[in-house]
Amino acid sequence: MSGPVYDRVALIGLGLIAGSMAHAMREKGLAREVVGHARSAETRAVAREIGLVDRVTECAAEAVEGADLIVLAVPVGAMEEVAREIAPRLKGGATVTDVGSVKKAVIDGVAPHLPEGVHFVPAHPLAGTEHSGPRSGFASLFRNRWCILVPNGADRAAVDRLADLWRGMGANVDEMDADHHDLVLAVTSHTPHLIAYTMVGVADDLRRVTDSEVIKYSAAGFRDFTRIAASDPTMWRDVFLTNKDATLEILGRFTEELFALQRAIRTGDGDHLHAYFTRTRAIRRGIIEAGQDTEAPDFGRAGVTR
Amino acid sequence: MSGPVYDRVALIGLGLIAGSMAHAMREKGLAREVVGHARSAETRAVAREIGLVDRVTECAAEAVEGADLIVLAVPVGAMEEVAREIAPRLKGGATVTDVGSVKKAVIDGVAPHLPEGVHFVPAHPLAGTEHSGPRSGFASLFRNRWCILVPNGADRAAVDRLADLWRGMGANVDEMDADHHDLVLAVTSHTPHLIAYTMVGVADDLRRVTDSEVIKYSAAGFRDFTRIAASDPTMWRDVFLTNKDATLEILGRFTEELFALQRAIRTGDGDHLHAYFTRTRAIRRGIIEAGQDTEAPDFGRAGVTR
Repeated sequence: MSGPVYDRVALIGLGLIAGSMAHAMREKGLAREVVGHARSAETRAVAREIGLVDRVTECAAEAVEGADLIVLAVPVGAMEEVAREIAPRLKGGATVTDVGSVKKAVIDGVAPHLPEGVHFVPAHPLAGTEHSGPRSGFASLFRNRWCILVPNGADRAAVDRLADLWRGMGANVDEMDADHHDLVLAVTSHTPHLIAYTMVGVADDLRRVTDSEVIKYSAAGFRDFTRIAASDPTMWRDVFLTNKDATLEILGRFTEELFALQRAIRTGDGDHLHAYFTRTRAIRRGIIEAGQDTEAPDFGRAGVTR
Repeated sequence: MSGPVYDRVALIGLGLIAGSMAHAMREKGLAREVVGHARSAETRAVAREIGLVDRVTECAAEAVEGADLIVLAVPVGAMEEVAREIAPRLKGGATVTDVGSVKKAVIDGVAPHLPEGVHFVPAHPLAGTEHSGPRSGFASLFRNRWCILVPNGADRAAVDRLADLWRGMGANVDEMDADHHDLVLAVTSHTPHLIAYTMVGVADDLRRVTDSEVIKYSAAGFRDFTRIAASDPTMWRDVFLTNKDATLEILGRFTEELFALQRAIRTGDGDHLHAYFTRTRAIRRGIIEAGQDTEAPDFGRAGVTR
C-alpha cells in the first residue's frame, strides 16, 4: 500500500474501534486527514487532549463535510439517528460505512436515509478488548483479525477501496450477506457474551459465596468470563435488542445442550460427559492454528513464565 | 523459607499440577527428594526423559515408601483406588494430601483407607492452564494463586507444614470446610467450565455456520470460552460426577438468570439488559485489583501491543 486510501475520513463516535482506526490510519498513512466527532463533550475533550484525530468537531454533520469516508462507530441503536443527521451534508461519491456488531438492523436503519450517489458499505471488524472510551484504542487492534464487509449490492469500486483500508490496518477481509453475518456473530460473539454476563451476574448475586471469595478464587476458570462481561453495556444492550432472532435461536440450542449435560451429571453418565469434553478440544486447536489466539498457557498471562 | 520443608515427597500422578509442583519444589529447594509415579507407561517414560522428578517408580505403593508427604494428583474419580493401593506402605507420621478440584468426595473416598498415625490434609491449588500431561508443568504456576486447605480435623502441625510448602511454591493459603469449598468452586470453576464446554459444543454442532467460520471469527468473544473448554476431559468428567449437588444448584441459578435475560431480549427491555451489564463490570475490577488477572487489554495476547 503506498499513499493514503482516502483523502478525508470522518469518524463518528470515538471509542475503542474508532480510536484504534485513528491510530492505525495514522501509523500507516492511510488517510490524509482524520476528523472526529463524539456526542459526549468529555470524550471530545479527551480526544483533543491526546490528539486522537486531526480535528474534533462539535457536531456530526460538521465532521462529515467534505469527507470521502464516513465511519459510523456508535452503538448499533444510535446508528439511524446519526445517519439522519449527517445525510444532508454528505459529499456525492462519498462512502459511508459502520463498525457495528449487527448488520441487518444497521442496514435497515441507515440505508433509507442516505442520498443517491453515496455508497453504503456496512462492515464489522471482529476485534475488541474489554476496555472502552477514547483512550482505549491502539494501532495494532485489527492486526490479523477479520473484518467482514456486507456489500449488500454496493458499488464494487467503493467496496474494494474500503477493503484496502482494512487490509492497510492489518485486517483480513471477508464478505458476507447480512443475515449470515448476524447468525455467525450470534454464535461466535453475541451468545458467548450473554452467557458470560449471566455467569458473572449469578456469582455476584449468591448469598452463600461472597464477592471476595469469587474474586480471590477466580483463577480456576471464572475470570475468563469476566473479561468479556466487562465490555461496554450500551453497545451490548443494543446488540441483543437488534440481533434478537439469531441470538434467541442460538440461546435455544445452548440451553438444549446444557440440559442434556445437566441430565448426564444428574444420572452419572460419565461416558457422555467425557465424549463431549473431548470433542470440544479440536476447536481450540483450530483457533490457535488460525492465529486467532495464543497457545501460551493461560493466554500467556503475566506471571506465567516457564 | 530455609531448607526443605519435607525430606521425601511422593507425587502420584504426573500431570500439570504434580509436574508444576516438581518444578517449583526443585527451584525453591523445598524437598530433598521427589519421587513420582504415573499409571501410564508413556507418562512415566516422558517424566524420566525430561528428569521431571528424581526417581520414577513402576507402581504407586513403591513411590510412597519412606515418603514424608504423599500428593495424590490423579483425577478425583481415581483417588480412592490409589489410596487403597498405597495405604499399607505409608510411613507412620507421614502426611497424605491431594490436589483434587472437589473436596468432599475425595475425603469420603480416601480417608477411610488411611491407617492411624497418617495425617490427611486435603488441598486444592486454584491454578491451571488448558494444557495437560507431564510436559505441561512449570515452576511459576502457583505464584500469587490461592491454595485452599481443607484440614477436616487434621493435626495442626501437619496442616501448617503443608501450608509452608504451598507458600514456598508461591501460593497464598486459605482454609475452608469441604462443603463450602465445593460450593465456591462450583461457582468460580465448575459451572463456568460446563458452560464453556456447552457453548463450544453448540458452535461445533451447527449446520448453518461452519467450523471454519467459528474458528476464523472467534476473536469476537468465543475464543475465551475455548481455552477452558480445552481442559482435560477425564479430570472434568470426574469433577462433575463428584460435585454433582453444588454444580446442579449453581446451574439452576444460572438458567434462571439466563431465562430472565432471554425474556428481556424478547420483550425489548433495554433497561434491564443495560443495568445487568453494568453491574458485572465491578467484579472484573475486583479480580484485577486482587492480582488474579492482568489488566492488559485482551489478556495481553500476542499481537496486542500499544
